[in-house]
Amino acid sequence: MSSFFGQHLRLSLFGQSHGEGIGITMDGFPAGMTIDMDRLSAMMARRAPGQSAMTTPRREADLPEFLSGVMDGRTTGQPIAAVIRNTSQRSRDYGDGVDLARPGHADYTGHVRYFGFEDWRGGGHFSGRLTAPIVLAGALCMQWLERQGVRVECHVKQLGDIVDASLLDVPEETDLSYLKTMALPVLREGLDRDMEAAVLAARERQDSVGGVLECRAVGLPAGLGAPFFDSAESVLSHLLFAIPAVKGVEFGEGFAFASMPGSSANDPFRMDGERIVTETNHAGGLNGGITNGMPVVFRCVIRATPSIAREQRTVSLKSHENAEIAIRGRHDPCILPRAVPVVEAMTAIGLMELWKERAACVR
Amino acid sequence: MSSFFGQHLRLSLFGQSHGEGIGITMDGFPAGMTIDMDRLSAMMARRAPGQSAMTTPRREADLPEFLSGVMDGRTTGQPIAAVIRNTSQRSRDYGDGVDLARPGHADYTGHVRYFGFEDWRGGGHFSGRLTAPIVLAGALCMQWLERQGVRVECHVKQLGDIVDASLLDVPEETDLSYLKTMALPVLREGLDRDMEAAVLAARERQDSVGGVLECRAVGLPAGLGAPFFDSAESVLSHLLFAIPAVKGVEFGEGFAFASMPGSSANDPFRMDGERIVTETNHAGGLNGGITNGMPVVFRCVIRATPSIAREQRTVSLKSHENAEIAIRGRHDPCILPRAVPVVEAMTAIGLMELWKERAACVR
Amino acid sequence: MSSFFGQHLRLSLFGQSHGEGIGITMDGFPAGMTIDMDRLSAMMARRAPGQSAMTTPRREADLPEFLSGVMDGRTTGQPIAAVIRNTSQRSRDYGDGVDLARPGHADYTGHVRYFGFEDWRGGGHFSGRLTAPIVLAGALCMQWLERQGVRVECHVKQLGDIVDASLLDVPEETDLSYLKTMALPVLREGLDRDMEAAVLAARERQDSVGGVLECRAVGLPAGLGAPFFDSAESVLSHLLFAIPAVKGVEFGEGFAFASMPGSSANDPFRMDGERIVTETNHAGGLNGGITNGMPVVFRCVIRATPSIAREQRTVSLKSHENAEIAIRGRHDPCILPRAVPVVEAMTAIGLMELWKERAACVR
Amino acid sequence: MSSFFGQHLRLSLFGQSHGEGIGITMDGFPAGMTIDMDRLSAMMARRAPGQSAMTTPRREADLPEFLSGVMDGRTTGQPIAAVIRNTSQRSRDYGDGVDLARPGHADYTGHVRYFGFEDWRGGGHFSGRLTAPIVLAGALCMQWLERQGVRVECHVKQLGDIVDASLLDVPEETDLSYLKTMALPVLREGLDRDMEAAVLAARERQDSVGGVLECRAVGLPAGLGAPFFDSAESVLSHLLFAIPAVKGVEFGEGFAFASMPGSSANDPFRMDGERIVTETNHAGGLNGGITNGMPVVFRCVIRATPSIAREQRTVSLKSHENAEIAIRGRHDPCILPRAVPVVEAMTAIGLMELWKERAACVR
Repeated sequence: MSSFFGQHLRLSLFGQSHGEGIGITMDGFPAGMTIDMDRLSAMMARRAPGQSAMTTPRREADLPEFLSGVMDGRTTGQPIAAVIRNTSQRSRDYGDGVDLARPGHADYTGHVRYFGFEDWRGGGHFSGRLTAPIVLAGALCMQWLERQGVRVECHVKQLGDIVDASLLDVPEETDLSYLKTMALPVLREGLDRDMEAAVLAARERQDSVGGVLECRAVGLPAGLGAPFFDSAESVLSHLLFAIPAVKGVEFGEGFAFASMPGSSANDPFRMDGERIVTETNHAGGLNGGITNGMPVVFRCVIRATPSIAREQRTVSLKSHENAEIAIRGRHDPCILPRAVPVVEAMTAIGLMELWKERAACVR
Repeated sequence: MSSFFGQHLRLSLFGQSHGEGIGITMDGFPAGMTIDMDRLSAMMARRAPGQSAMTTPRREADLPEFLSGVMDGRTTGQPIAAVIRNTSQRSRDYGDGVDLARPGHADYTGHVRYFGFEDWRGGGHFSGRLTAPIVLAGALCMQWLERQGVRVECHVKQLGDIVDASLLDVPEETDLSYLKTMALPVLREGLDRDMEAAVLAARERQDSVGGVLECRAVGLPAGLGAPFFDSAESVLSHLLFAIPAVKGVEFGEGFAFASMPGSSANDPFRMDGERIVTETNHAGGLNGGITNGMPVVFRCVIRATPSIAREQRTVSLKSHENAEIAIRGRHDPCILPRAVPVVEAMTAIGLMELWKERAACVR
Repeated sequence: MSSFFGQHLRLSLFGQSHGEGIGITMDGFPAGMTIDMDRLSAMMARRAPGQSAMTTPRREADLPEFLSGVMDGRTTGQPIAAVIRNTSQRSRDYGDGVDLARPGHADYTGHVRYFGFEDWRGGGHFSGRLTAPIVLAGALCMQWLERQGVRVECHVKQLGDIVDASLLDVPEETDLSYLKTMALPVLREGLDRDMEAAVLAARERQDSVGGVLECRAVGLPAGLGAPFFDSAESVLSHLLFAIPAVKGVEFGEGFAFASMPGSSANDPFRMDGERIVTETNHAGGLNGGITNGMPVVFRCVIRATPSIAREQRTVSLKSHENAEIAIRGRHDPCILPRAVPVVEAMTAIGLMELWKERAACVR
Repeated sequence: MSSFFGQHLRLSLFGQSHGEGIGITMDGFPAGMTIDMDRLSAMMARRAPGQSAMTTPRREADLPEFLSGVMDGRTTGQPIAAVIRNTSQRSRDYGDGVDLARPGHADYTGHVRYFGFEDWRGGGHFSGRLTAPIVLAGALCMQWLERQGVRVECHVKQLGDIVDASLLDVPEETDLSYLKTMALPVLREGLDRDMEAAVLAARERQDSVGGVLECRAVGLPAGLGAPFFDSAESVLSHLLFAIPAVKGVEFGEGFAFASMPGSSANDPFRMDGERIVTETNHAGGLNGGITNGMPVVFRCVIRATPSIAREQRTVSLKSHENAEIAIRGRHDPCILPRAVPVVEAMTAIGLMELWKERAACVR
């Protein structure tokens, strides 16, 4: 199965790129929250295509329709269901099933997984378009978390070979809300122009580029998460690896821990008034799978879009012979700008799950 | 909660370092498998302390007792329960609760999470000792997988600054079973001696070292996993991040994808007789969250053991004042050798869950 | 939470009586099944209002729209999502929230449960209308089960004081498909006329009537289900008690077992050719929570519709004072005819879940 | 699978009648509760055999050992694991697998379910002995619920043809704690003597008797449960049908609702000081699947013990031929007295799950 997540907040994702519509249901969301529709739309717009020269010019309206769980603009506490209609993408010019498997795509594995009955049109259920309802659900969680004083901030840590500064070095009180207004959100001023140039150059070469997104959540209470199978890292990575193209996730210093001795890797505790803080935050706000009240910081790597115009070798799933394929159509040479709100959304969903799990710990 | 995993194969982990015993239950395991107890013990022995000069000289018998699910040495298909008694570690010389929070440990976060009622003795439920029953469960899964022709192989990819070759460059047919006989399993001959020297040097400095483990599963059929929330990456990373000290997980090229253009990152398909293979395996055997039949390859970073003898700054959880702590006792200066079978076990558990999910896909 | 069911077949139900639409998602449904839309519509039509003089004259189109999981009339194996639009029921003439709690309804308990933020219009998420998408999902499961040779048959065992014969006395090979063509399906010829008269008399008295539905599933293999928490009885009763108005569920002889000694209650086994059968079927096809290959037979009691025109005593949820209420509008004086396909649907969903759980038992 | 229950409180049951031990794990239990071991033992003793002339004279110590989750007699909030050792029952005189299927038992269905690899000795994992750890877990939940002001009270409503009064007619403030001191707890004075005589007479006839247990939970807040798939009825019946021998469950008036018109079936609301109550409690404290603050009342039927000394017809699972069987050994002629604490335990577990689900509904 593919579409379910969560124990305390429960999501069910559905849809195919070229079906009638895509959407999500979410049960367990708090009652009584007035939805800020403008901010919800703004977050979804950051994921939508056609926002800049870097992304595919294909435009989607992507206006969600709430079928359930909302009344008079306020959540009811009952299951939320939202649908985004597929409009322009429906076409009749598809043949009779997938033939040439696109390298780096799920054409082949989906074909095996679903016995050849999968909807192959435009990526079907595997399409990155399915991240739209994920952002929708995440935007609701984000609005709830913000009312509890939590901020989630995300930037492009690396694009190809261009590397930005790290959130591990940014004081937690620094307001990074400007990141949400940038096409390519970065910490180092001007670096977004270099990155944009790299993206446009890749497109020129009929190629694509990948990179790393870095994200932090500030304002969390200590005590969310648990050791072992429900560690905060387990819950968050489960969600982050559900994003197509994510191939790695690391918390705090992540893979840099490999060459850090214990004496440097530990974060000493100290009192900050009444609050217990750590002097450094190598651990990314997590000890033993549980938040310690410091910013939760992590990174995930996004592989370069597999859809490239160059000719590639592949096989025919029908004839089982070697073949060549060139992928037509307009595709994002770099998915990172649009992946930023998806990472934010997954983070918000995961934190909400952890928050509710914690709330169920009655005494 | 902390102790549950899985939908199709269900695990429940329990125990505290200094309680009566630790153990695990596992429901959904196939009926009729004769357990090879020697191989099970051998896998558990690799995780046990005291195996070499590099690890803590504390010895554990760690002989598991099967309370349920096994009859005449064969699995019954009913819930398996196994317990490992705690013996020597029980002590009465603990004070009345945790006071000084050890940096890098879960003393503080566990204290908040469990309202001060947690078992703090020797790490309690957070103890790395809880990985013993995980290896036990994983060893059973491994034996079942091996009968299906699956091999799981793991080595120390990096220790401090010493870097081994990559499994991405080893042909899938190469037999790496010798790795399971090495105290520090590596691909490059002699590199284990350098690594051991680095570990001993760290201990000399009253410090500890971390590193990276790399693992692959060979012989998997195509079609395990699903897109989005139950991607194979999601399931495996969920389990891997449940291992204490793991702070990053990456599949295939992982974070190296950041600087790989799409034209290099894609793995071209080709026919190999009747089988569809990829020429390269940058994706680590996974497209769209589903196995493609190539080796599943991933790495996880293990931070250096936080228990070091040097004095560290911290706070008192009782008085809420700054303090200093020096951690007594014998601790592993490097946990990587013992973490190898834990990573193998988690991999086997995750693959078994994916295998059963796939089997439930009736037609 | 309210909307989720299942481990191997996963459902998520959503919608409110007067919201935009109601629907369901279902993940884990087999790939490649061609949907018989006529039979699906026929099953849904049996649940729809306005079918006979006995039910509310309000009519619903209730044509489901498949948003996902179906392509060219065939299931894809990916998440199914279906929506039924709410049309005529939307109204603006509701006041500002629920005031007088209708006795026997969820007005009061829903008000507490959702902190006063619930959608109270027309029953909101509690409305019996939510059973429409349940029938939709169940109809798909039913079509799949039928292809495996399973038949599900249901009749009105009792209506008020009028009692029909029992399925426990009907040979399993007897074809009861005619039941699905009757407004009030009964085994004893002509009894439906008596029942209809009782319903119309109740309406005349501004009252309503309840009764008992009896259902059987024929053609199941032995071996579905498990002891204890996942007994077939547990799974089926979980679903049956999810139907509004069901207040009791019994299998085989059910409550009649109370006065049956063990010597009469046991079902002797015997060989029937190669097949193991039982001579009687008091147990309703289930031993130790597992199907034994005999028909699974159960009954559930449906309380009389709480919506009656007579004046009833209640309280105001706003002023917390005693009050009187008379429920206007047209309501079913007897819900049993429309409940029949709902019970069939829940049965099919439960059997499918058990079937898939069984299929995951790899060897 | 068979051994798992719950989303917010998670149980894993394991063991076989003649294996090393039986037990249960429970995760999510509140931290900081001091366990009253005497009362826990008392509840378990009521389930143990050998308590009276009515039950099997076989005696079990059944002293549970807490392996995890308890420190200094107090719950830690971490996974609880408890084991009960099997002692006297282990025997070597079993043959090589089950042959004659005992009617009414799970010998045949278990044989199919587990491919012939099941532990058949003494009922194996199907044994009623597995209810001992269930009572253990339930006793902990009960103690927690009692601290919240909840009382759970259960009696023998019917035994064979002897019928007791109903809890629906007992005022909620009436203290029924004396029921827990009776071998056959009944409301009508002296009725237990008649029941005991009926049990002894059945034993004399080499037969067994069944009956009905009735249970209520008093002191619950309104608002526990949810409509549809997580209705309180669904959760409770799921657990009750997990008790071997339970073949029917009904809430409030239950099957008597069949002949009650809506005008009698509805419970009018009224104010009782500040509290909203219902004048009658036909619904058994549940509207729309949610508690309304009135006592939750239900009944479950317990079929007569299938183990009887008389000769019965059956088949050989080895030769697939008809055969006869006479079940040797000492068996309970009536399981009802011992089933009372099991029903109480399941009720407490279910209410705790609902309570925690409710607590997770953050605002």
